[in-house]
Amino acid sequence: MMSAQLVQQNKLSIEGPFIIGIDGGGTKCKAVLMDRNNQILGVGISGSGNPVYGVKQAQASIVECASEALNTAKSRDHKLIDLALEDIIAGIGLAGVNIPLMYEEMTKWKSPFKSTFITTDLLIACLGAHSGKDGAVIVTGTGSCGYSYANGKSKVVGAHGFPQGDKGSGAWFGLKAVEATLLSLDKIGPETAISPYVFTILDVDDSQGIVEKVASKTSSLFASLASAVFSALKEGDATAIAIVKEGSDYINHMAKLLNHPTSARISLLGGLSETITPYLDKNLQEKLTPALSPPEVGAVIYARQQLASQLRHEAATVSIKGDL
Amino acid sequence: MMSAQLVQQNKLSIEGPFIIGIDGGGTKCKAVLMDRNNQILGVGISGSGNPVYGVKQAQASIVECASEALNTAKSRDHKLIDLALEDIIAGIGLAGVNIPLMYEEMTKWKSPFKSTFITTDLLIACLGAHSGKDGAVIVTGTGSCGYSYANGKSKVVGAHGFPQGDKGSGAWFGLKAVEATLLSLDKIGPETAISPYVFTILDVDDSQGIVEKVASKTSSLFASLASAVFSALKEGDATAIAIVKEGSDYINHMAKLLNHPTSARISLLGGLSETITPYLDKNLQEKLTPALSPPEVGAVIYARQQLASQLRHEAATVSIKGDL
Repeated sequence: MMSAQLVQQNKLSIEGPFIIGIDGGGTKCKAVLMDRNNQILGVGISGSGNPVYGVKQAQASIVECASEALNTAKSRDHKLIDLALEDIIAGIGLAGVNIPLMYEEMTKWKSPFKSTFITTDLLIACLGAHSGKDGAVIVTGTGSCGYSYANGKSKVVGAHGFPQGDKGSGAWFGLKAVEATLLSLDKIGPETAISPYVFTILDVDDSQGIVEKVASKTSSLFASLASAVFSALKEGDATAIAIVKEGSDYINHMAKLLNHPTSARISLLGGLSETITPYLDKNLQEKLTPALSPPEVGAVIYARQQLASQLRHEAATVSIKGDL
Repeated sequence: MMSAQLVQQNKLSIEGPFIIGIDGGGTKCKAVLMDRNNQILGVGISGSGNPVYGVKQAQASIVECASEALNTAKSRDHKLIDLALEDIIAGIGLAGVNIPLMYEEMTKWKSPFKSTFITTDLLIACLGAHSGKDGAVIVTGTGSCGYSYANGKSKVVGAHGFPQGDKGSGAWFGLKAVEATLLSLDKIGPETAISPYVFTILDVDDSQGIVEKVASKTSSLFASLASAVFSALKEGDATAIAIVKEGSDYINHMAKLLNHPTSARISLLGGLSETITPYLDKNLQEKLTPALSPPEVGAVIYARQQLASQLRHEAATVSIKGDL
């Protein structure tokens, strides 16, 4: 789905300004280094970039994946050997920065980049999916949320985090799988075909084993159990059917609330998107279009938009000064 | 409900052995220092004693509340001035030690006491509630679980932790309150009278404020929101009615599964017990009897039982040796 082209030898020449786009999610951080001609020079990947799980950890992950992208680029093209992070503009989309305190913490950061533009993971996902055009995205990976961007206005649905929100996400399906299994083992809930899958994934064989493996764990661990529900669903398990109905109803609801114009694109993103698509409303399934680029490319688009806006602002200031 | 008597001046003389009973829960640790005549000499309270949230923290909390109980005793009776923790036998009931790894971590501990007997928070709650006799307890505080002890056998129902289990507990009601409020604010769920109570308790006024206050928080924070459901219930709110029905159904189920003889006592314990009692099955309500003593006194009873068992074992060993 990457519209930007990987650099081939003897193709377009590589020209600055160089922009690095970073997508920082709860599980991993991805970076892409691009030149002015939209060529991808290098990519990188590292750990959690969600500052809610630790501001220092998020900053370290950002630097790590950016450095990896830069080193990949250098190893592929020796003309870039002197390029450093301080020469590069960064567009960064982060989970968690919709929380003002987290946004403040991240913008206070003395990053190693030439300049840094920070926004939400949702905006960069949307910009990437629709190459900077208006549209909507629904993300269902570890967490879930809906986001639309049209006529300069954005709207968010969900994005409330785990366990209090994020219905229809991997973590939510995993939590429901564990709940159903524990209730079944206690003979309080019905027997369910979900249980053996939970046992296998966690490599345990009783309630106590489950509790020990999931106690105080983050959403990522629960997301690893989502497949138990969908495996049981294929066996016609009633509990699994009810859980998938509740999760997919929520996604259907989000799509309706995003109010994107019928002409605009809508994409389903995240690790669970392919799994859940067949269970969504038929008319939503028909509307869905594949994302054009991944969120990290959307982060590059965001940085370019911000740079262009700065230039317009400076030009306006010069013009006003000229009028004085 | 304390059957043991607080020491009055010039009453029964204070005699060792001195036993300290400790109830270590997720929110706080409580200690009681008792003498051989069942007199309470001092009490203490400190922070979390659940090793799942940190083994070192749990050990520090145990020592802190024990020291406080000892210091209270010393300030009330100068004959105890030379008494130290190393002269005292400790019975300790802890949340989390049903997990083998946690039990192992806690029993490896070089505690400051003369000797230490560690067991689950459930057993000491049951021993305290029924003064060491057979019976059952259902605990609904921050977490929830059922436990019965009869003819030397114990049975546990629930005790699966938050957020994957603990239905009908404070944390579970709080989580349901937050979920319902967030769904309502997104116009995906129905409007609910729970929302204004959640806003007031968290001192926020929108979804983002809620998410910021609850993100990555422990069960204790969610438990502080349980009252939102019961306040809305009194206004006849349909969402609150459904949540309380689901929570109380679970408690009713637990009571049936505990299989305690109809003659045996059953007590409802924990911070939410009074609040939820009116919504339980009528025949369960009629069976409920107040706890005779709190869990920390049950921890003293546990230590005495273990000491007696050791003495019997030693006597048996001496007898066998005599036979050789």
